[in-house]
Amino acid sequence: MSSDRDGQARSEGSSVSLSERRARAAWSRISEPDDPRAALLVREFGAEASLADVLRGSPSLPEVFRMRAERLVLDRDLEIAERVGARILCPGDPDWPEGVDDLPHPPICLWVRGPGDLAALTSRSVSIVGARSSTRYGETMASDLAAGVADRGFGVVSGAAFGIDGAAHRGALAVDGFTVAVLAGGVDRAYPVAHTRLLEAVVESGAVISEVAPGSAPTRPRFLLRNRLIAALTRGTVVVEAGLRSGSLNTARTAADLGRPVGVVPGPVTSMVSAGCHQASRDGMAVLVTDVAEVVDLVGAYGSEAAPRPQGPSRPTDALDPVDAQVLAVVPFRRAIDATAVALAGGLAPHAVAAGLPRLALLGLVVRDGAGWKKVPERCVP
Amino acid sequence: MSSDRDGQARSEGSSVSLSERRARAAWSRISEPDDPRAALLVREFGAEASLADVLRGSPSLPEVFRMRAERLVLDRDLEIAERVGARILCPGDPDWPEGVDDLPHPPICLWVRGPGDLAALTSRSVSIVGARSSTRYGETMASDLAAGVADRGFGVVSGAAFGIDGAAHRGALAVDGFTVAVLAGGVDRAYPVAHTRLLEAVVESGAVISEVAPGSAPTRPRFLLRNRLIAALTRGTVVVEAGLRSGSLNTARTAADLGRPVGVVPGPVTSMVSAGCHQASRDGMAVLVTDVAEVVDLVGAYGSEAAPRPQGPSRPTDALDPVDAQVLAVVPFRRAIDATAVALAGGLAPHAVAAGLPRLALLGLVVRDGAGWKKVPERCVP
Repeated sequence: MSSDRDGQARSEGSSVSLSERRARAAWSRISEPDDPRAALLVREFGAEASLADVLRGSPSLPEVFRMRAERLVLDRDLEIAERVGARILCPGDPDWPEGVDDLPHPPICLWVRGPGDLAALTSRSVSIVGARSSTRYGETMASDLAAGVADRGFGVVSGAAFGIDGAAHRGALAVDGFTVAVLAGGVDRAYPVAHTRLLEAVVESGAVISEVAPGSAPTRPRFLLRNRLIAALTRGTVVVEAGLRSGSLNTARTAADLGRPVGVVPGPVTSMVSAGCHQASRDGMAVLVTDVAEVVDLVGAYGSEAAPRPQGPSRPTDALDPVDAQVLAVVPFRRAIDATAVALAGGLAPHAVAAGLPRLALLGLVVRDGAGWKKVPERCVP
Repeated sequence: MSSDRDGQARSEGSSVSLSERRARAAWSRISEPDDPRAALLVREFGAEASLADVLRGSPSLPEVFRMRAERLVLDRDLEIAERVGARILCPGDPDWPEGVDDLPHPPICLWVRGPGDLAALTSRSVSIVGARSSTRYGETMASDLAAGVADRGFGVVSGAAFGIDGAAHRGALAVDGFTVAVLAGGVDRAYPVAHTRLLEAVVESGAVISEVAPGSAPTRPRFLLRNRLIAALTRGTVVVEAGLRSGSLNTARTAADLGRPVGVVPGPVTSMVSAGCHQASRDGMAVLVTDVAEVVDLVGAYGSEAAPRPQGPSRPTDALDPVDAQVLAVVPFRRAIDATAVALAGGLAPHAVAAGLPRLALLGLVVRDGAGWKKVPERCVP
């Protein structure tokens, strides 16, 4: 079945009929993503029946559906799909990614290139997205975070754009991880063109997908509509760098609206492409993430994948009894003082000082010197 | 009265008696800051009566109080205070900073150098604190934020330490603002010594204060106890840079515990002295602040001083009707297309396209070209 023009390859065992699949493919060209009217028609009457209605020119349906349906050459779309090895994935297929069904208007179908099982690739995945006009700092962070989560078995989903998106895909690829690129145009169109080879590598390792039919142009509205898919496909979204008007904040907002956790990477406040990240944190929409463990903590299973809390270097004095710590704090380095002087200096009970000094000496923190005590200089444990 | 050895200068009109003031000054040497026993005794029995009890050697009182009281030479402390122009401020004095009374164990008195009215200086103030081992980025931020808030009439309170604290004081001084340094040792001791001149400048412009008597050493426990005063004196605390174990996080925690807002300045995640700031945000203890307006928003009066939400650059298309924006998005730059092609490309109703194109032309966003329309390249408005 792998050369089947109707794109059913890998969908054996699916309950989706051939005609249903063709009708959904047609709808992906007739309607724009997220069109509430198309979503309603397909949901209420089925893809085939509502398509037939459109073709009949039913006056109650939007005129543009009929105009587009009249011009539709489905076989041409399917030919293109076949040429680039794309298949049509429909709700009901075993590898349909269920996350997208949380959207108010889920995709009617998805066009998928690549050998991966999209449901498996995305069931444990994170979006890593951000500005096209990124900095070296942001690109390094995107790449490192992507490599780190991919290394822990998470799929990395992004939009294949210049800057942060590209760095995220590359980071996952660098550790032979799984990565999924969601395009705003057809899966046959490498966009941006300079990412043609990157997208080929993504196809080989995971999947390149789109909600619009092959041959469709990546128009500006489709970028925003594409972003909602990125948010819905994954367990959570991390924005690495974003200007105040970055489209990746729109991805983050959709993720938050869907109840998916959102992380943002902080950066210098002097960097305009960190301003959107900081604003998302200030708005309470996102939590800061600063390393791989914190990203896994954000999107991973509760408890089992919680991030270890970052700790400063430990010190030999960390485990001291609080009163002994107070005693130690007032013993001087240079000249020895006796227990009474220690009690006076620290405002401490003399018996506590008398008991504490020998304990501190056993730990090597103070030494006797004549009738008094002085402190041993502190060494940090690395 | 300004040469009065009993430190009553500037406290005329106060209800605090001379003997009460002397007793409180004595307590500031007998007990460490935040000592719950001293606080209880002074609150329940009064400073004078409880001091007399201590001097009588009452067996129910902590031995170290008696030991210290026996060695107390109050007149020596008052002499030092007079020499450096310090006065003793007590609860009940008109310029007592009421914020400190929110502490579980407020200071029994405060030693104050400088001409300023401490209540006035701190009633509208913000703490700007952070790491001693700061970066140039952090110091610039501290200085700029301090200058900005000082310029808006806020007092800047900090701890006079190297790094962020020093930069904060300097920023306020640079714009002739008010700044208050809270020391861990006596107000006669410039600490760190390298900040002697800075502290003199702070004395002249605002105040240098301490909870411990002149001559007292800045011991390590006193630094932490001093931090609680910084938090309590101000409307809110901003941590500019802090390692994971920075004492300034302790200031922030105290501020949060007192219900004062806490802000942290984000920075590169690769900077260890931003790690404590990021952690405080992740912990939900602090909100990110990235400019002066956001600091004022944090600590200022609600509404009247709310920060304007940072906006990206505005675009001529911002005010467009949503459908017109969709129309514009699919009109190409290079070749003109007619209204039907626009409707098909955008999945839009033909009548909406027909109405929208002339509106967009009036705005200079599209132009007619033969039978079709093409887009005018977008210019950003600065």
